[in-house]
Amino acid sequence: MENNKTKRLVGNAIVGQSGGPTAAINATLAGVIRGVKEDVGNGAIRTLYGMRHGVEGLLQERLVNLTELFADDAKIKVLEHTPAAALGSCRKKLPKLGENDAVYEQLLATFRKYDIRYFFYIGGNDSMDTVAKLSAYTKDHDYEMCIMGVPKTIDNDLVVTDHTPGFGSAAKYIAVTMQEIIRDCAVYASPAVTIVEIMGRDAGWLTAAAGISRVVNGIVPDLIYLPERNFDRDEFFADVRAALAKHPNVVVAVSEGIRFADGTYVCEGFGIDSTDAFGHKKLSGTGKALELAVKQEIGCKVRSVELSISQRCGAHIASAIDLAESVSVGRAAVKAACEGVTREMMVIVRDSDSPYAYHVEHSDVSKIANQIKSVPAEFINERGNHITDACARYLLPLIEGEETPTYTNGIPDFLIIE
Amino acid sequence: MENNKTKRLVGNAIVGQSGGPTAAINATLAGVIRGVKEDVGNGAIRTLYGMRHGVEGLLQERLVNLTELFADDAKIKVLEHTPAAALGSCRKKLPKLGENDAVYEQLLATFRKYDIRYFFYIGGNDSMDTVAKLSAYTKDHDYEMCIMGVPKTIDNDLVVTDHTPGFGSAAKYIAVTMQEIIRDCAVYASPAVTIVEIMGRDAGWLTAAAGISRVVNGIVPDLIYLPERNFDRDEFFADVRAALAKHPNVVVAVSEGIRFADGTYVCEGFGIDSTDAFGHKKLSGTGKALELAVKQEIGCKVRSVELSISQRCGAHIASAIDLAESVSVGRAAVKAACEGVTREMMVIVRDSDSPYAYHVEHSDVSKIANQIKSVPAEFINERGNHITDACARYLLPLIEGEETPTYTNGIPDFLIIE
Repeated sequence: MENNKTKRLVGNAIVGQSGGPTAAINATLAGVIRGVKEDVGNGAIRTLYGMRHGVEGLLQERLVNLTELFADDAKIKVLEHTPAAALGSCRKKLPKLGENDAVYEQLLATFRKYDIRYFFYIGGNDSMDTVAKLSAYTKDHDYEMCIMGVPKTIDNDLVVTDHTPGFGSAAKYIAVTMQEIIRDCAVYASPAVTIVEIMGRDAGWLTAAAGISRVVNGIVPDLIYLPERNFDRDEFFADVRAALAKHPNVVVAVSEGIRFADGTYVCEGFGIDSTDAFGHKKLSGTGKALELAVKQEIGCKVRSVELSISQRCGAHIASAIDLAESVSVGRAAVKAACEGVTREMMVIVRDSDSPYAYHVEHSDVSKIANQIKSVPAEFINERGNHITDACARYLLPLIEGEETPTYTNGIPDFLIIE
Repeated sequence: MENNKTKRLVGNAIVGQSGGPTAAINATLAGVIRGVKEDVGNGAIRTLYGMRHGVEGLLQERLVNLTELFADDAKIKVLEHTPAAALGSCRKKLPKLGENDAVYEQLLATFRKYDIRYFFYIGGNDSMDTVAKLSAYTKDHDYEMCIMGVPKTIDNDLVVTDHTPGFGSAAKYIAVTMQEIIRDCAVYASPAVTIVEIMGRDAGWLTAAAGISRVVNGIVPDLIYLPERNFDRDEFFADVRAALAKHPNVVVAVSEGIRFADGTYVCEGFGIDSTDAFGHKKLSGTGKALELAVKQEIGCKVRSVELSISQRCGAHIASAIDLAESVSVGRAAVKAACEGVTREMMVIVRDSDSPYAYHVEHSDVSKIANQIKSVPAEFINERGNHITDACARYLLPLIEGEETPTYTNGIPDFLIIE
């Protein structure tokens, strides 16, 4: 821990957003803005800047003065309910240290120019890599500053933290939408299979959220397949047949990242050679591949639904606890940095499940970056075709409460930073 | 009008749901139940039955006693916020009169057995056909009963009525989701085209809803294509290029039913021969076909999003005015029938746009069934790539207000009739 401490610094701060959009990443930005406005650092931070499109915009010196822009508290409230990334995002990965130091020199020059002593980067795995590298570089070049990672990702795949801000809202969107889809599928009396494809290339957390309701009302998809388990086509067909034998309207939730035992993704390896006139492969997604496979093997009515980007930007059905936590980690990051903490990522520690309680801490970012937290074995049933009650109980508090934006003429009010 | 009047009848009533699910069809069912419970017919209706899966279940005598089931008003409230069709639905079209009268004889026998004098059928075009045929049959066979159509369809394609119950909630889902998708698409600085496919095979009303916001905040998809206009590939590419020249994040809304001038659907006729190993054609939908076409022609990052069934069952973001109107038409149908009206469909008459005001009437069902109301020419811009302000102003009142279900542990409470 001592390694990640610096003396008290006084200067300006900058915040950026990176990686994929979520419904809560702006709530975390709002938390950072609130932390600075409320002066949780006792005068350590003068002006808060925002970088447009993460480090990409920072390299082009594209900054906005957030202290001025959010002088009005009402705007912060609107920002909290705005999906995606109001500052813009990027997918830029910084070069390895020593490989192309010109990039780092340029960033350091910008820090000096604007007297930036605090750097907050809101993002997922790749963003934490940026935080770790930038921390190492500035430390090696005797520029004292506090560099903090603030987690967000709908994927919930960061280690150390109990869960990630942004995940709860995506999970809530999925859990609520799944209730509606199950009702929709139930209206006809004839046998039909509906396959719902959910995001998550490597970790199955989002797809697991389709099953949360098993500890609420028992209404869940018949089958749930996560990428943590190998997908077996024969077992899958047997599972679908068994479900159809019970009732006509079978609903299956699958992660886009499910793979066969040989490592091939289901979307490319189901024996479906979906080349088109342009010669593109992989025309179909995982849901579409399974739709065609069930149609051929079982022959009943089948359709597939891809929840697509709506699941990560569904601000109109955000989780209240997720938004509250997202604001908290942003504010706490400002406080910790102003106490001299650096090279750390904010983490959420769960104190209890029921009633749910948590607190915010921070942890060495170099031990978090570039790792993936998978759904553990005890959260998946033996057959590998559903989640366990333990999994649902872990997920349940994260979707608690409904936070909605304000509306004007039936349209949600979102904040745009020009 | 005299033709569609009968004397005052006293007996039992039956209600059914038919066609595709919507977020508001149960609100109309709730309206019928409320009308009977409040005795708007002054003793004309004794017991209200529900038929499971429309006339299909009626032919199997699968009835439920709704008067008993909804003795508790709190259950009606939950029903109002439950998406899909709580009684179950069907797609059965009754045979032409004189072709297979056994079906009609069986229905008539059931009416006699249960002393059913009131028949309410909630549905779209095909359902109004059922109402018209059944009216003609019972009239010809001297069985006095009131047979009423109660409209619902997300497609808004029924004639005479200003709009259809269920459309407003689907339109609201689309309008809100589109605001979120546009925010999501705006986060990166590199050129990208996002194509959003919206339901509507013949009429473009739902896709038009993607543009409502042009009279609210001006944030709308760059391009909107409806099936009412022929789709031209060269104009489309020129439109997309022009949009990309203005800003990097282009969003296009397309109706699933758009067609080329020769009548071929875009999803099958874009020169994309998407046969798979099973020999299935039409693997791709309209959005996917356009995604591939833009990728080939323009070469930038492209993705497609299909709003799919979520747009018709999104009860968690239902339009308040739509739910209120849906209840109204159900209740009004009971009142009208008990006054002796038969062979009519309930219609909504718009009294004014701003402030929005409406009232409920009824109109001869035989002049409504099997017709389609398209988006009129003045609602589409000259180029055929967007809607007009007049269109947005027509649509706007229909998405006003947010009605949400109650939640238990973050999961919406929906009513299930076992």
